[in-house]
Amino acid sequence: MTAASLEFWFEFASTYSYPAAMRMEALGRAAGVPVLWRPFLLGPIFAAQGWRDSPFNVYPVKGRYMWRDMERICARQGLEWRQPSEFPRSGLVAARVACAAADQAWLPAFVRAVYRAGFAEDRDIADPAVIGAVLESLDGDARVDVGLWLARAQEPATKDHLRAQTAAAQGLGIFGAPSFVVAGELFWGNDRLEEALEWRISAAS
Amino acid sequence: MTAASLEFWFEFASTYSYPAAMRMEALGRAAGVPVLWRPFLLGPIFAAQGWRDSPFNVYPVKGRYMWRDMERICARQGLEWRQPSEFPRSGLVAARVACAAADQAWLPAFVRAVYRAGFAEDRDIADPAVIGAVLESLDGDARVDVGLWLARAQEPATKDHLRAQTAAAQGLGIFGAPSFVVAGELFWGNDRLEEALEWRISAAS
Repeated sequence: MTAASLEFWFEFASTYSYPAAMRMEALGRAAGVPVLWRPFLLGPIFAAQGWRDSPFNVYPVKGRYMWRDMERICARQGLEWRQPSEFPRSGLVAARVACAAADQAWLPAFVRAVYRAGFAEDRDIADPAVIGAVLESLDGDARVDVGLWLARAQEPATKDHLRAQTAAAQGLGIFGAPSFVVAGELFWGNDRLEEALEWRISAAS
Repeated sequence: MTAASLEFWFEFASTYSYPAAMRMEALGRAAGVPVLWRPFLLGPIFAAQGWRDSPFNVYPVKGRYMWRDMERICARQGLEWRQPSEFPRSGLVAARVACAAADQAWLPAFVRAVYRAGFAEDRDIADPAVIGAVLESLDGDARVDVGLWLARAQEPATKDHLRAQTAAAQGLGIFGAPSFVVAGELFWGNDRLEEALEWRISAAS
């Protein structure tokens, strides 16, 4: 039986996607599971549920819990954490770059660097200049051409890619981030990543 | 330092409270953590957020996910599961009995038996006759006096107890079930039970 892959559905504005994104590549490799990185936008999905803002702002009691919970989760995982001074910040530019760079070896490093910028350094990831600086900062064998990738992010094909991916998320029944899809099974939430990987292992065996 | 206890906040109508309730006593004992059983009602808390029904009915996409997720969780935990033919069913009568019986040794067994009735046997736990049958079925050193406990459930002091406990839940920032409070820290969700127990262990050491 062919090994199932894991689809990692994430939104750059999503706090709980941060700890998942930071361990996704390493855990996938350790489990021998190919990871498919699937950036999408929660905005249209939340709008379909009648929310024009993050549910953590719509429901302040959930928001207060989430901020404390993020501190604990990051401490547990050894991740830097700074509550952003503005929330949510649009993940649109970053998600478009991630769509344009879907086949690039540096994609996982880019995703992690954007999350660090947003949730460890309180930088405004909605600003293309910040995303440019993140691209600039990536280590690797080859330098990333910042101008090229910011331009590709604005191409109609890239915008269509992200729109289609967001529609696909909705079609899969995704309603929050992070979400994981393995062998047709949907798992929602950072704390279900390990279980999703195990599911794949049992599904493939 | 005195050992911290764990407050287990649960609602009999709540699906995710079922797998938590079924392992709570055993896990608490294994960890040497006294468990304080805290039945409450989600209705007034949901109403404060503008919902007049379970969020799993208000947001069908979350509901569809939850029903499948419950199947997986119960399979993993070796629990019987049957999707109830009516949802949610009021946990009011059961919660009142649990409040009246707060000091009884059979309380954890009663809680488990109510969850089994609701989510393994599809019985109508809103019906006092079903709760009576559950009380009747409890094994133990002494038979439980069914008439006595159903009567106590209707006493004003018991009703006040449950109302006060629900207000206390709200005061703690609880917005869903199950929730766990350990050393002033709130954890939400069945999948955070083990972490809540670990938190207590590190807090007490």
